[in-house]
Amino acid sequence: MRALVFDDGLKAVELPIPERDRGQALIRVDLAGICNTDVEVTRGYLAYRGIMGHEFVGRVEDADDAGLVGKRVVGEINISCGECGMCRSGNPRHCARVKAMGINGWQGCFADYVVLPERNLHIVPDSVTDRQAVFVEPLAAGLEVLEQVHIRPADTVAVIGDGKLGLLTAQAMHARGYHVIVLGKHLEKLVIARNMGMDVAFASDYSGMVDVAVDCTGNPSGMETAMSIVRPRGTIVLKSTFHEGSPTNLTPMVRNEITCVGSRCGPFPPALRLLEAGAVSVEPLIDAVFCADEALRAFERACARGSLKVLIDFGAGR
Amino acid sequence: MRALVFDDGLKAVELPIPERDRGQALIRVDLAGICNTDVEVTRGYLAYRGIMGHEFVGRVEDADDAGLVGKRVVGEINISCGECGMCRSGNPRHCARVKAMGINGWQGCFADYVVLPERNLHIVPDSVTDRQAVFVEPLAAGLEVLEQVHIRPADTVAVIGDGKLGLLTAQAMHARGYHVIVLGKHLEKLVIARNMGMDVAFASDYSGMVDVAVDCTGNPSGMETAMSIVRPRGTIVLKSTFHEGSPTNLTPMVRNEITCVGSRCGPFPPALRLLEAGAVSVEPLIDAVFCADEALRAFERACARGSLKVLIDFGAGR
Repeated sequence: MRALVFDDGLKAVELPIPERDRGQALIRVDLAGICNTDVEVTRGYLAYRGIMGHEFVGRVEDADDAGLVGKRVVGEINISCGECGMCRSGNPRHCARVKAMGINGWQGCFADYVVLPERNLHIVPDSVTDRQAVFVEPLAAGLEVLEQVHIRPADTVAVIGDGKLGLLTAQAMHARGYHVIVLGKHLEKLVIARNMGMDVAFASDYSGMVDVAVDCTGNPSGMETAMSIVRPRGTIVLKSTFHEGSPTNLTPMVRNEITCVGSRCGPFPPALRLLEAGAVSVEPLIDAVFCADEALRAFERACARGSLKVLIDFGAGR
Repeated sequence: MRALVFDDGLKAVELPIPERDRGQALIRVDLAGICNTDVEVTRGYLAYRGIMGHEFVGRVEDADDAGLVGKRVVGEINISCGECGMCRSGNPRHCARVKAMGINGWQGCFADYVVLPERNLHIVPDSVTDRQAVFVEPLAAGLEVLEQVHIRPADTVAVIGDGKLGLLTAQAMHARGYHVIVLGKHLEKLVIARNMGMDVAFASDYSGMVDVAVDCTGNPSGMETAMSIVRPRGTIVLKSTFHEGSPTNLTPMVRNEITCVGSRCGPFPPALRLLEAGAVSVEPLIDAVFCADEALRAFERACARGSLKVLIDFGAGR
């Protein structure tokens, strides 16, 4: 099978189709998405080596659970042990021995086939297209904000960053009725947000006026902006991870008694529901679709400054 | 009156007794305490110039409210406008025009007399001594942790830092029945904590095992330690402020979805109740008491590495 591998450099290679263990499913990948975390992995994040990728939609070819075989699925990226204290306390995403597809200890989905535990899979409703379903993982990450923080109906939420994660997270909030302001630096992306019905602004327009600020910038400046726009006793949600963690001065957090919450992966079922209801638009977020034979070019495009979501089509012409 | 002033250097000077406005009280200071924030002020924190100090107990000499005159009082340090959005939403400590006694825009209490709004004052019960009462302000700051964060009965709380704020904050938690571990570097201070009935340890003994970590170190290393000992999805409370905010890499916060809460001043009434109940010991925290004529030496002592609470006695021999 074709696979995009990181191993002292990014390589498109031929590999044997992987074998599945008990309780695991073999999935034929149809469409995959490139995330900023993938770019970070190629810069050394978590020292990962192997097949890249963690956003996909595909069809189950083989599984123990007969109800899954032939079904179109998306898959949660964290593979937990099911036995440690965190797993038993209902936090499998923070399993002590957690692996993450294409990021840490588990082969990724930028390949014709991927293997995942059956319990990681969610069947995609027929009305949700592949182009929508491939966004379930990052949309779920956006919804994680609402899993973690109690945002009140009257609160003003600012999403900092007008990239793909920012625009998805902002839509997740907007779809649930919050007043959302997208703060960004790119006019053409702010136009996308405004066309989706959200308010847009430059960060400098706000100071201490926002109840909840969600940092989706992917760089340390997001936290600085968040501390400057959130009101005293407000909340900051940090979604940015970066390999070279550039440090932040936290004194304003103490002075203004700000709460800051680190936020990562989120729940798939409500993300699928939002897409099924048509409450979130993904088409404006698609930058380009490359066929699998051009996966290296796809990755190059995803690394380009200002690019939105780049997809790799493994199903095309198969 | 005698006063300890910061103005391009620390000076003991003679000043006129201040005049009070409507709704304000003139208080004769009996005993005052030196806080690490005072030390930071002399290093440039908030560019304050004027009479230093914000921890005191004293007696009201003059006030509009006849019920206050002659009473022994402690005073909240934040002077709010009562009119802005934060004040009206019940957050006067985060008033948009807030001043802070001896820190920002309001004369401090390292003097024979201090003026404060009457609404800032709390009458000290007879059974609470001056030596106890002067600890109300920092003890209230420790209790602020419990105002901000829901800590469950089964949680393990680590207080990082065995200085005066750490030992007070740890006692506030311990008095309320929590399992508290004091993490410090100074054997003689850890002995104080153990004699108070708390567990003590070196930070390196824990890794990802603590539910709530409270940073009372006063320096940026506290946040690093907190991120290393708190469990995934755990909570960090930051009580450290420092003028030269040394920056922190927040990547572990995102990866482990940690919540971090900045925490400052706290509520006086429950602090007074803890002291009245004898649930918090302050005597072991008193490093030295200097008479007011030796205020400069007192400050020097408070700046010495490893010192505990240094008090200035304005009442002695008056």
